[in-house]
Amino acid sequence: MKVLALSGSLRAASINSALLRAAARLAPPDVSVLVFGGLGELPLFNPDQEANRPGNVAAFQHLVAESDALLIASPEYAHGVTGTIKNALDWLVGFELFASKPVAVLNASPRARHADTALRETLKTMAAVVIEPASIPLPLLGANLDEDGMVATPSVVTAIRDSLTALYEAVALQRVTETSAFPFR
Amino acid sequence: MKVLALSGSLRAASINSALLRAAARLAPPDVSVLVFGGLGELPLFNPDQEANRPGNVAAFQHLVAESDALLIASPEYAHGVTGTIKNALDWLVGFELFASKPVAVLNASPRARHADTALRETLKTMAAVVIEPASIPLPLLGANLDEDGMVATPSVVTAIRDSLTALYEAVALQRVTETSAFPFR
Repeated sequence: MKVLALSGSLRAASINSALLRAAARLAPPDVSVLVFGGLGELPLFNPDQEANRPGNVAAFQHLVAESDALLIASPEYAHGVTGTIKNALDWLVGFELFASKPVAVLNASPRARHADTALRETLKTMAAVVIEPASIPLPLLGANLDEDGMVATPSVVTAIRDSLTALYEAVALQRVTETSAFPFR
Repeated sequence: MKVLALSGSLRAASINSALLRAAARLAPPDVSVLVFGGLGELPLFNPDQEANRPGNVAAFQHLVAESDALLIASPEYAHGVTGTIKNALDWLVGFELFASKPVAVLNASPRARHADTALRETLKTMAAVVIEPASIPLPLLGANLDEDGMVATPSVVTAIRDSLTALYEAVALQRVTETSAFPFR
């Protein structure tokens, strides 16, 4: 299973980015997690450019299409989603290969509910399949852990592995369902 | 009164941008409305850059500081705010001269409630003063009006003028209140 991981923060020391890098290190053998580093270079979404997308937008969309699932971790800014993660999703709204994509949303700051709720609402509106058993809160805020600290903390390791396992199972189930729905193709 | 107008859409034929340009044409003599055209060129917000802001971010913040009020019109994308308008606000969260700024939020598509609610929640969290009598729904969607059409439509003209008048009165009242709170400065 190929997972594309998107962090909603561009801060170098972002806890959300560290969480995704930790997930990449902790992924089970059948799962590869690619942390996408290009969200900060995407242009701001312009519907007029959809027919003639900038090169890095097309590359981003291609990566999304090639992935079996997305893993999103994003902070809350002023009781809202970050402009960075919403801009990335705005470029995917009209991208037909995004529909039905399984998505796990990790919340590194469970006290922050506004952005988490808004992100899920947007993803569902985009016809993504939010995998709830994989979308778990991680009580990292205040724990002051970096990527190495997360990988060395058993409770965090367990939570990340549980999330990836749930995502893996959901993707496997989706494949079986799709196959049995079209048994003769 | 100087009003800085921000559109959350970069589309050339955006109904929200047209609405703001119409507001600039319809402004009463004591009110000047500047429609800011640079939101699409702002970089995606990075907290690491706040201490050493890119030039166009500093210019945007300067314009905000010099304005008596903001006028925002922004569409809803996938039941959420647009990445463009949220990114602009993300750059203002830590900008101290934004606090207490009077803001009017025009909603060109009253059926779209998610983005309007989220935008107001973010503005209030940023300590902006959302001027409710100036923040009115404009039933423009489906009316298929461009800027000239809006300026030629009496009900739209009245709504825009009512909004700007309410904003003007709120700014005037804020000045009086500030003056009487510090009578000896």
